[in-house]
Amino acid sequence: MTLRFGLLGAGRIGKVHAKAVTANPKAKLVAVADAMAPAAQAIADQYGCDVRTIAQILAASDIDAVVICTPTDTHADLIEQFTNAGKAVFCEKPIDLSLDRVKACLKVVRANKGTLMVGFNRRFDPHFMAVRAEIDKGSVGDVEMVTITSRDPGAPPLDYIARSGGIFRDMTIHDFDMARFLLGEEIAEVSAMAAVLVDPAIGKAGDSDSVQVMLKTATGKMALISNSRRATYGYDQRIEVHGSKGVASAENQRPVSIELANGSGYTRPPLHDFFMTRYTEAYAAEITAFIDAVGAKKAAAPSGEDGLAALALAEAALLSVKEGRTVKVSEIIG
Amino acid sequence: MTLRFGLLGAGRIGKVHAKAVTANPKAKLVAVADAMAPAAQAIADQYGCDVRTIAQILAASDIDAVVICTPTDTHADLIEQFTNAGKAVFCEKPIDLSLDRVKACLKVVRANKGTLMVGFNRRFDPHFMAVRAEIDKGSVGDVEMVTITSRDPGAPPLDYIARSGGIFRDMTIHDFDMARFLLGEEIAEVSAMAAVLVDPAIGKAGDSDSVQVMLKTATGKMALISNSRRATYGYDQRIEVHGSKGVASAENQRPVSIELANGSGYTRPPLHDFFMTRYTEAYAAEITAFIDAVGAKKAAAPSGEDGLAALALAEAALLSVKEGRTVKVSEIIG
Amino acid sequence: MTLRFGLLGAGRIGKVHAKAVTANPKAKLVAVADAMAPAAQAIADQYGCDVRTIAQILAASDIDAVVICTPTDTHADLIEQFTNAGKAVFCEKPIDLSLDRVKACLKVVRANKGTLMVGFNRRFDPHFMAVRAEIDKGSVGDVEMVTITSRDPGAPPLDYIARSGGIFRDMTIHDFDMARFLLGEEIAEVSAMAAVLVDPAIGKAGDSDSVQVMLKTATGKMALISNSRRATYGYDQRIEVHGSKGVASAENQRPVSIELANGSGYTRPPLHDFFMTRYTEAYAAEITAFIDAVGAKKAAAPSGEDGLAALALAEAALLSVKEGRTVKVSEIIG
Amino acid sequence: MTLRFGLLGAGRIGKVHAKAVTANPKAKLVAVADAMAPAAQAIADQYGCDVRTIAQILAASDIDAVVICTPTDTHADLIEQFTNAGKAVFCEKPIDLSLDRVKACLKVVRANKGTLMVGFNRRFDPHFMAVRAEIDKGSVGDVEMVTITSRDPGAPPLDYIARSGGIFRDMTIHDFDMARFLLGEEIAEVSAMAAVLVDPAIGKAGDSDSVQVMLKTATGKMALISNSRRATYGYDQRIEVHGSKGVASAENQRPVSIELANGSGYTRPPLHDFFMTRYTEAYAAEITAFIDAVGAKKAAAPSGEDGLAALALAEAALLSVKEGRTVKVSEIIG
Repeated sequence: MTLRFGLLGAGRIGKVHAKAVTANPKAKLVAVADAMAPAAQAIADQYGCDVRTIAQILAASDIDAVVICTPTDTHADLIEQFTNAGKAVFCEKPIDLSLDRVKACLKVVRANKGTLMVGFNRRFDPHFMAVRAEIDKGSVGDVEMVTITSRDPGAPPLDYIARSGGIFRDMTIHDFDMARFLLGEEIAEVSAMAAVLVDPAIGKAGDSDSVQVMLKTATGKMALISNSRRATYGYDQRIEVHGSKGVASAENQRPVSIELANGSGYTRPPLHDFFMTRYTEAYAAEITAFIDAVGAKKAAAPSGEDGLAALALAEAALLSVKEGRTVKVSEIIG
Repeated sequence: MTLRFGLLGAGRIGKVHAKAVTANPKAKLVAVADAMAPAAQAIADQYGCDVRTIAQILAASDIDAVVICTPTDTHADLIEQFTNAGKAVFCEKPIDLSLDRVKACLKVVRANKGTLMVGFNRRFDPHFMAVRAEIDKGSVGDVEMVTITSRDPGAPPLDYIARSGGIFRDMTIHDFDMARFLLGEEIAEVSAMAAVLVDPAIGKAGDSDSVQVMLKTATGKMALISNSRRATYGYDQRIEVHGSKGVASAENQRPVSIELANGSGYTRPPLHDFFMTRYTEAYAAEITAFIDAVGAKKAAAPSGEDGLAALALAEAALLSVKEGRTVKVSEIIG
Repeated sequence: MTLRFGLLGAGRIGKVHAKAVTANPKAKLVAVADAMAPAAQAIADQYGCDVRTIAQILAASDIDAVVICTPTDTHADLIEQFTNAGKAVFCEKPIDLSLDRVKACLKVVRANKGTLMVGFNRRFDPHFMAVRAEIDKGSVGDVEMVTITSRDPGAPPLDYIARSGGIFRDMTIHDFDMARFLLGEEIAEVSAMAAVLVDPAIGKAGDSDSVQVMLKTATGKMALISNSRRATYGYDQRIEVHGSKGVASAENQRPVSIELANGSGYTRPPLHDFFMTRYTEAYAAEITAFIDAVGAKKAAAPSGEDGLAALALAEAALLSVKEGRTVKVSEIIG
Repeated sequence: MTLRFGLLGAGRIGKVHAKAVTANPKAKLVAVADAMAPAAQAIADQYGCDVRTIAQILAASDIDAVVICTPTDTHADLIEQFTNAGKAVFCEKPIDLSLDRVKACLKVVRANKGTLMVGFNRRFDPHFMAVRAEIDKGSVGDVEMVTITSRDPGAPPLDYIARSGGIFRDMTIHDFDMARFLLGEEIAEVSAMAAVLVDPAIGKAGDSDSVQVMLKTATGKMALISNSRRATYGYDQRIEVHGSKGVASAENQRPVSIELANGSGYTRPPLHDFFMTRYTEAYAAEITAFIDAVGAKKAAAPSGEDGLAALALAEAALLSVKEGRTVKVSEIIG
């Protein structure tokens, strides 16, 4: 059985998903929609699919599932419409920047008995998956302390920052999800610190560019997150899981692994400089997981609830910074 | 301009090349031929191309180039026929196990003014290419000593060994080509040692399973090659180039780069266990290079002469082992 | 000029300092004192020095300096007495577990115009010193975020825990000092989380065995500390300094750096399993620094004030855990 | 029982051994002799021993053992005299540059029932010892192929080269010994290549500066050696042992193990730049082994015969280069 896809949004990330869908033998890209006609047409030309409007895709009988890559403020509405139309939905994170809107949306999804998967792509990075697999095998024993280092090569444009919801909702949210993924327990407490160290303009825009977060579960398992909008050496993405039996970690990735030695020392090249090249395999793997889950009529993960939980941690971190205290997640989400 | 391909041979390596051709936007796979009908049909089904006979492909006006992945003893004949028919030829190594046959074949190619590229895929491994690029940038200064370590996870079946031409022609030949690629000069002298350490049956078949080779150019640049048909830890493929200014090296590759630490120490996973997964990117890149060379009407490299030179080194190594002496390459090939 | 030493305390750490003093050509070990006569005698026999009482050493005209390695609750008194007697003092950390007692002691030291150095040995680890040197050279630009991972191979005996002052004062205190050393600014805010994950008996003793701490300076520089009383793979001691121009880091140390590869992967041995073998060079180097500072009539660092500052951070961390909030260091120490 | 030492030769390496002897609780340095009086006096002053003539040390009843660090051309005579006088002898390599002289010397040692250990210090490097220990534990299974990379940071002065006996006898000899140590079998065949790539003046002096060697035992085990008198990145000393069950290897050593990451990549410092800092622990450990062997009345290893065997391999390598052939060791030494 082939899963027939509509693609909503033909921008940068839309192209990545178009490639993943068309490369999957169990899927077919039927149509693409985008407010910018040339963008949609380019994908249609490359992969031999239709250009349609979102409304046409919603009404189409030859489309089973959609990938939502439109602007963030349209996500929740589209999820509601498409699950209502009986289509399986893969939606880029976040569902919405408002916790209330996300809650309402998920209520509709549940009412629709809809299938919703949220694009926390990092869970599908082969290296991070291998760390998770070691946990599952028992290699690290009981998980005790997780450390997540996540630094961007550079800050996004200021206009992006302005509508991003802030660093916790935009950037740390991936690490909140990763912490939950690795800890295997719900987070109970959050404490965060934030600073403007990279660019004063980010501070003027009301955001921070350097943050650190501590998380703790009800049983005392803990996690540390370190974020910066600057990393001169590339896209820094590391995880480490310390447990009763040992540690499992995933190191950084670089495009080529050579080494040059001379009087200055031994030098390996910088890391990937872009999230799309760093997570190429993860983007393909998450779409495969979605296709497989729909095919098997199983719940897709990460779910809408995972998206909600990560957003709640971002809210808790913001509150922690604001009030200078450890925030219970139960204060944020009941 | 799209380069239209015929694929001769639909076996393991044929499938790899079919994928590379179809993934390249400047190329189109038109037809596939194989003595085993189901193998050809499987590729035809997957990529939407024709199944034809070799003779039909030879005669076809809608095919510009072929990839030859048939058994070794057919390579030279096919190269001659297809270059005679004006088609560009990418041929898997080796051209032939007989030096005389290769010489004769290349004479025909030259008479046909044909385009011939030989499948020394390792030149296109991104890590090895990056080492070569460092040499070209001058990072290592004058190249002085090259070290190539190349060990297979396990020996091939004995019937393969019997028709392989022996370890120097079958396995070391890649390293001979790599040594030439990295030294940037022709090899003048060869000394080799060979032993049966892995499997006595290989010795009974008249072959060796563990060999080491020293090479030297006319100006004194040198190379070392270490080969084994056994490596419990995976497919061991390393190069190191030592020069007047420093060293450039490419380390081994593994499917995932995680690390597990416990009372037994710090453990990273074994290497790739198969040449096809280790050299996935190289296989795609060599076909791209072929397509680009044909498109630009430039000579494709590695050329037939590169294939001949590597085979001559294999002959020299065999003679060195037999006679217990350093062999001049000029004794083998004038 | 030779600096003539008295050694107060002939236990485990006393032996380390005895070796460091006697190995230094600018120093001489004149006498050792210990309540346990055989312990003192053993050092006297090994290095050819006298056994004396503390009172005799205090009164001795042939002793210029002392190394205090007696139980913690004697440190402050001895510092006061020996600086009053005009002797230079190197004291093992901590000066005292009580912040008030430390403050009072330092007041006496200042009144005596005494020389006091506190044994934060890690500042003298050659790898950590090299990281600090990179900061000083400007290699990392402005320091922004420091990460310190510090995990013990195993928990100390429960009776030690009971009189240790708790994990923040006993173990994290080294990391607080390291954070100050690397940040190069005073810490303004502290937030901490603590749990009992290793051994419930530690919890029953009123202590924690797994903690994480966030620090922040007035200008927004930040640090993360991760501590555990358990590390199956050895003594885990890492630092990383992220700045505007790059990152400098010091990796873990192991007794031998070999690697074994087989079907299970690539394995390097566990780390040092004991702080004394891990920090062998640091223990010698701190005594050398003390001798050099006294010889040059310069202030010795880390100073008593450094000891006080680290203890204040431990107090702040305790308060943060207790009250679930970010604590300003100014609340602890004016 | 304390072993009482005389030190013959107070030069660079004499100082290293003086330190090792005096640091060993089972040994005592009684006297030092050197043609240069100030050199001997400096050691006497530092360690509180006598300055004597070689003749006085030979006749001394308070000296049990000597360390010979005099010029190479005196080694064989001194070994004969001191073993004849019943003293245990540790002699720096080589015993002599002439194979015949070495043979004659060892005959005298045997006649004297003397104790002779030769200073192949690398066998005592903790990392190389750990590799050897893995072999003994069976971790690599049957040893099959050994790779030794050994490159000096720079060439020695030309006048040293002139009296060194050439690169094979002076530099590769350590690697010949290491190959024997790791293979655990006698070498049967040698093939070598040599070139002048670093400094033409070395060629004019009749020597080479870049060599590679292949070795083979009677059972087919093999080894590769790569030597250069140049390494811009420090003192390059690596070993790798490939066997039926896996590989054990020892990587290079550097003074500090930090890493700096920025836009140019990830850089670790150069290696040790001097054999004395690289092999500090090995120099101490070999003297300890000598003291322990004498104390236990056991044969000391590496023995004079080990010295002879390594020299024979150097002769074989020279002959191989000269005649362009694989040389049987039995041609050199019966």
